Amino acid sequence: MRIARFSIDGTVGFGVVEEEPAADGGLQLDIIKGHPFAAFERSGRRVPVSQVRLLPPVLPSKIVAIGRNYAEHARELGNAVPEVPVTFFKPSTSVIGHGDEIVYPSISSDVHHEAELAIVIGRLCRDVPRERARDVILGYTCANDLTARDVQQRETQWARAKGFDTSCPLGPWIETDLDPADLAVGCTVNGEQRQLGRTSEMVRSVEDLIVHITESMTLLPQDVILTGTPAGVGPVHVGDEVAVTIEGIGTLTNKVVKRD
Amino acid sequence: MRIARFSIDGTVGFGVVEEEPAADGGLQLDIIKGHPFAAFERSGRRVPVSQVRLLPPVLPSKIVAIGRNYAEHARELGNAVPEVPVTFFKPSTSVIGHGDEIVYPSISSDVHHEAELAIVIGRLCRDVPRERARDVILGYTCANDLTARDVQQRETQWARAKGFDTSCPLGPWIETDLDPADLAVGCTVNGEQRQLGRTSEMVRSVEDLIVHITESMTLLPQDVILTGTPAGVGPVHVGDEVAVTIEGIGTLTNKVVKRD
Repeated sequence: MRIARFSIDGTVGFGVVEEEPAADGGLQLDIIKGHPFAAFERSGRRVPVSQVRLLPPVLPSKIVAIGRNYAEHARELGNAVPEVPVTFFKPSTSVIGHGDEIVYPSISSDVHHEAELAIVIGRLCRDVPRERARDVILGYTCANDLTARDVQQRETQWARAKGFDTSCPLGPWIETDLDPADLAVGCTVNGEQRQLGRTSEMVRSVEDLIVHITESMTLLPQDVILTGTPAGVGPVHVGDEVAVTIEGIGTLTNKVVKRD
Repeated sequence: MRIARFSIDGTVGFGVVEEEPAADGGLQLDIIKGHPFAAFERSGRRVPVSQVRLLPPVLPSKIVAIGRNYAEHARELGNAVPEVPVTFFKPSTSVIGHGDEIVYPSISSDVHHEAELAIVIGRLCRDVPRERARDVILGYTCANDLTARDVQQRETQWARAKGFDTSCPLGPWIETDLDPADLAVGCTVNGEQRQLGRTSEMVRSVEDLIVHITESMTLLPQDVILTGTPAGVGPVHVGDEVAVTIEGIGTLTNKVVKRD
């Protein structure tokens, strides 16, 4: 099931993406009664995706991100695969949705795309054993862990390099029925393929990361884990259209704009 | 004015700490109508502090923390004063209040206290010019930026070393009328003085830090900035009582306990 968050006429809701297309040939949503992180049912009331604005599918209280989780990407930046996963936060103020604009930050002149599988946490959890890791996941979405590479190289901690406003596009929706073990993860810029890897290349699996993170901190419903990016990262420029596509989920597209 | 957040009989509220003591000789709160981050007034209804549980005075969407902002503390850990402030996040799940327990994390055997002045942001802001920096501040509180020193030394990014559950005591309340330029900041463990510095020793001032942070990211009401710790950091152990005292604010006390 694919769950989207959307706004229409000033109200916000969740909807399930239908198999059957809308009258306009595009996708349609079956509007949800209740909240997808609790009990909910489909209302049967439908709205074409073309008539809504898709929002970030979750409002995470925190985003826990993992660096250097694909060996080939670690190598392309001259880094070793770390013994312990490199773990950092992106703030809630960095989140935007599908179709929203990435605003090029004034502190950088070298912003890179990083396509990543994002895990959406479904329930409060702590000290999750490996065999229970899948139970705390509501689903998966696409993420772009935009990184000011020049700032990252100058500053030892990455809060500014990876935490600037609009640096965390998430979407277009949450896919709840998905095996994350071996999915293609790609990124195109203006239609040209830049990154293409498979989640099977991840040094630490989805389950490993949940164990690692919840060893020290509680995850809350709607929290997001970014699982690292495959090789092929590179710069984006004002005017570019960046698209992250993950097999079985869909495509998250954002345009890069200049700050007013 | 000192604004505390508290719970009593299962309800949560804010109150202004009164000059006049309660009947029991302790402090009393004048309960607030409205919300301190918007328009509010005092109700005139009073409750002794001894009858409530003080809560963290804010629920930050993010905590932006600064490392190595006191030269003598940078030196004691063998670090240089950085050219750009070391900037990292602590998550909302790390926040506890005055009197709450610090739960010693299983990932560490060397947790250190770090007493810090915390800035509480009062309004949404971005790209704040230096001369407007004070305008975005609601007030100040005491913080303890607890750090798993061994984890910090092993892991390049500090999310786990400084983001474990209960690693960010805040309180006991927000002081809104305070010049932060030259305040004593101290920490005691079981009554013994461990840290004692002055905010005038900060490499970057409160205003500098707000400019630095909002250059790349939006701050929201209730967000918190931790301004760095003076020299004298050291370990805490299960059973210890750790107290952070800041001149003009008060004392934030927490006991260290073993995880069940």
